[in-house]
Amino acid sequence: MRNLNQDTITQAVIARFAGTPDPRLKEIMTSLVQHLHAFAREVKLTESEWLAGIDFLTATGQKCDDKRQEFILLSDTLGLSMLTVAMNNNKPAGCTEATVFGPFFLEGAPRFNLGDDVAGGARGEPCLVHGTIKALDGTPVPNALINVWQADAEGNYDVQYAHLAKPQARGILNADENGNFHFKTILAEAYPIPTDGPVGAMLKATSNHPWRPAHLHFMIDAPGYEKLITHVFREEDPYLESDVVFGVRSSLVADWKKNPDGTYDLDYDFVLNPVKQTAKV
Amino acid sequence: MRNLNQDTITQAVIARFAGTPDPRLKEIMTSLVQHLHAFAREVKLTESEWLAGIDFLTATGQKCDDKRQEFILLSDTLGLSMLTVAMNNNKPAGCTEATVFGPFFLEGAPRFNLGDDVAGGARGEPCLVHGTIKALDGTPVPNALINVWQADAEGNYDVQYAHLAKPQARGILNADENGNFHFKTILAEAYPIPTDGPVGAMLKATSNHPWRPAHLHFMIDAPGYEKLITHVFREEDPYLESDVVFGVRSSLVADWKKNPDGTYDLDYDFVLNPVKQTAKV
Repeated sequence: MRNLNQDTITQAVIARFAGTPDPRLKEIMTSLVQHLHAFAREVKLTESEWLAGIDFLTATGQKCDDKRQEFILLSDTLGLSMLTVAMNNNKPAGCTEATVFGPFFLEGAPRFNLGDDVAGGARGEPCLVHGTIKALDGTPVPNALINVWQADAEGNYDVQYAHLAKPQARGILNADENGNFHFKTILAEAYPIPTDGPVGAMLKATSNHPWRPAHLHFMIDAPGYEKLITHVFREEDPYLESDVVFGVRSSLVADWKKNPDGTYDLDYDFVLNPVKQTAKV
Repeated sequence: MRNLNQDTITQAVIARFAGTPDPRLKEIMTSLVQHLHAFAREVKLTESEWLAGIDFLTATGQKCDDKRQEFILLSDTLGLSMLTVAMNNNKPAGCTEATVFGPFFLEGAPRFNLGDDVAGGARGEPCLVHGTIKALDGTPVPNALINVWQADAEGNYDVQYAHLAKPQARGILNADENGNFHFKTILAEAYPIPTDGPVGAMLKATSNHPWRPAHLHFMIDAPGYEKLITHVFREEDPYLESDVVFGVRSSLVADWKKNPDGTYDLDYDFVLNPVKQTAKV
């Protein structure tokens, strides 16, 4: 312990966590230390780079507030969020795929009835969204709870505006007893993630654009089924091949039809994965 | 890009950083993504664990201010700081070893003359510190700039007190032309790192104590030599074998003698490493 060097310190740190009472926390700390040290060793991290890393992480934390989550943005842009989603949502073929949660969900969005307009005054082209929530065998899932949220025509979520009196372009509603839902909203448009923080600086320094292809967020909850967190993307969006957060799935890309009157129409069905049955004693 | 899964996403993220103009940043981002993903994959990180990690990092950043650096504490307690110090301070035998910088250094500490008391009113047993700053061949290094800083008898650095009018137990002074220095201060005592933040919670959850063995911080600068950042520790401190930040080196442990009048005396010499000569064209 008094003469640790760059080759022996990793095992000493791991030994320090050997007494962690919770076995899962012990497993996580052990792996974290191993990989963190392996990274520093592989790149031969200098002391000034270490300090730049400390400053970057500090600034990332300090950019967060009740409406801004810069660490989720960082996780998203490093592909960690999508990796975590992929590892934890290995569903049977035919189920709607999951994608990233993102940093813009808000607890307690306004409640709506089927047919209502969830836009709440947000700017954008009018769009009708409708579909059915089903089980894998095609039978409807009744009364699922649906959370939807999206950016407006300017590319901003409501939480990105400083002085908005009430939520916009987000809402909670229930599908009917036949699994059907329909609501009005605005057309989803491509937008850049916020670039005025450390993550924006990182994207710039690595010559990456900050754009996400147009999408509408869904979180769907029904008893007996796994909660589904996903998006529906728009076909022909120029950023489908280069989503800054790696969230696109082919199966989540849909044709948002333009009506003769200039409004849009999205028809999309969701297929939920049943919760695994646990044997009862 | 539209159908990344848990096995293919890592290479896709690395490809995203392939266009980074600065080759060193590209190397660091590539390695970081690889090791971050390897960690998540190895522990099969769940979505709630991912969120707990986001919350932990956010709280760590938000605990930082101009006097508190919780991310340095985190790096210190995960052994990353000492690993970085070890990798970057591979000095010839005979040179004084480096150790962690720690989170309590303050730019612009008060200036003192040799013989002055740097305690500035901080509570603790009086202690005289003296020694010589030398080159590897034993010749004195004249007029080196010495920064010293330490905790008081309560285990707190000045920056940990909310309403202190001026710095305490820290200062800047120059060795004389023969490399000799001497100043008064207080006795260094063992102390716990701050435990009221996320790092304290992590130590508690992993059943680790937060203590550092007693030490006096030194930063020594002289033209032609590498800057030395180190501590001098006190022999017989009960935490020498379990320093929470892994900073102890046998060669940095000294005998702080107690005088008959109850004051203390530390005699310690520093040996600086010459800056590598670069060939001139």
